[in-house]
Amino acid sequence: MAPPTVLITSLGLMGGSLAAALTRAGWPVLLHHRRPEVAMQAEELGYGRQVTDLPTSLARADLCVVCTPVGIIADTVRTLAALSPRPVFTDVGSVKGSVCAALADLGAAGRFVGSHPMAGSHLQGLVHAKANLYHDCLTVVTPLPGTPEPAVALVERLWQTVGSRLCRLAPVIHDDAVATASHLPHILSATAAAGLDQTAAPLASSGFRDTTRVAAGSPDLWADILLHNRDAIRQRLTADLAHLGALDAALAKGDVAALRAWLELGREGRLRFERHYPLGDDEADNNDEG
Amino acid sequence: MAPPTVLITSLGLMGGSLAAALTRAGWPVLLHHRRPEVAMQAEELGYGRQVTDLPTSLARADLCVVCTPVGIIADTVRTLAALSPRPVFTDVGSVKGSVCAALADLGAAGRFVGSHPMAGSHLQGLVHAKANLYHDCLTVVTPLPGTPEPAVALVERLWQTVGSRLCRLAPVIHDDAVATASHLPHILSATAAAGLDQTAAPLASSGFRDTTRVAAGSPDLWADILLHNRDAIRQRLTADLAHLGALDAALAKGDVAALRAWLELGREGRLRFERHYPLGDDEADNNDEG
Repeated sequence: MAPPTVLITSLGLMGGSLAAALTRAGWPVLLHHRRPEVAMQAEELGYGRQVTDLPTSLARADLCVVCTPVGIIADTVRTLAALSPRPVFTDVGSVKGSVCAALADLGAAGRFVGSHPMAGSHLQGLVHAKANLYHDCLTVVTPLPGTPEPAVALVERLWQTVGSRLCRLAPVIHDDAVATASHLPHILSATAAAGLDQTAAPLASSGFRDTTRVAAGSPDLWADILLHNRDAIRQRLTADLAHLGALDAALAKGDVAALRAWLELGREGRLRFERHYPLGDDEADNNDEG
Repeated sequence: MAPPTVLITSLGLMGGSLAAALTRAGWPVLLHHRRPEVAMQAEELGYGRQVTDLPTSLARADLCVVCTPVGIIADTVRTLAALSPRPVFTDVGSVKGSVCAALADLGAAGRFVGSHPMAGSHLQGLVHAKANLYHDCLTVVTPLPGTPEPAVALVERLWQTVGSRLCRLAPVIHDDAVATASHLPHILSATAAAGLDQTAAPLASSGFRDTTRVAAGSPDLWADILLHNRDAIRQRLTADLAHLGALDAALAKGDVAALRAWLELGREGRLRFERHYPLGDDEADNNDEG
């Protein structure tokens, strides 16, 4: 069985790394970018062949991976799908509900299956692309209920070929899950970090170090992420504000049993995480104090 | 100049480690615990001499370090100070305002100076004591404005001898600072952890891992810490709830400039921390995605 031909558009960190990984796996890769010099640079790096005529190349592709910022994924897929009836489209966006809803007709036709490979770096751009970016990362694939199985299987084969683990979720469930697993932790981390004034800074230690690590991330990148998943985030944030309000009430009453029960909920959530993400010995240690 | 004689009462992790460190430094150490067999065990470990008659031993001590849980520090100091006019008292409690206020008369008389050595472990008890526990940790010393300097200097000499760095803060300023540097980060970490359900757990990655690490800490220990610093914590929590409310408003409006500015506040707080706590190369890396 010959490997599928894949056209990748938008060759930044995500698209460039995917091109590098697929080329290494022996899949034919066609390279496209809105600025042709970027596609030429990717070809020079050995990541595939530059596209010169987009409709012709699309007509030869089995798969087309759209690696643009999340805000323009749906429009890009629709424009490209109109140029050729052949390829199945997928994307690498970190939010799935709005994109999959906007492309529901293409999903039902087996032309689009959403993907979210959970890999990345604070170093952006083709220059930082690397063939092992997707190795051992989790990729969530988000077909709609009516999406034909061969299209889903083709997209899953793509991610397995570059070393990803796979998980299928409905698009809206995916967005709730990343709000909980990634976006709210970032927001709460940034809140803890923002509070640190000059007096408190010398007293901060390893607990503060780890709790606030992600707060150093790019405000531009994260503003984009939060904005695109804002419905799921606001719902989760409402629940977290109520949870913090319950703690405040327990503190006001001096209710030590309620404080213990509240802290136990956090401990149980952490243990749910650890069952999926085995920690090294050093990571499991918790030698902080109050 | 002969080293001071130190009586240590309550020989758990903190008291036992202090005894071990002072003995190693050549200071005479007298060991006291409400259960005499614990003091005997500490003597067998080579951490000093067991106290048989408490008033006599107190009359021979230059310093007395009270290592009880924070809720009974003030009563313990007052009871022991009544037995002998000689020693200067200090403690190892993680909250200082209430203790120093309750002992204000002893502070003015140069008989009590509060201490908070910021060291610890989730492994409690004499059996886990180690002579290097205080090495390179920060100890906050919290004299009242009228406390005579010789008493403060003696307490600072104690902590320097076991390897601590020193910082002087007013008791209430200390409590605000630890609320910000340690207690709110713990609360926000526990909130992020509590939210993780079974669907989201497989999607949690390195950002969740670090943000929620401290949420695995003992609910009993942390309920005690939060309760004793509840005034400072509730004030800080009110500010953090307002901060999260501002984020929710920015999300509701889709105001990307406001989102960036909000995230920038977290980034700036993290940078204030990093100026005091140099990170290794691996720790400074931030290769997460949304």
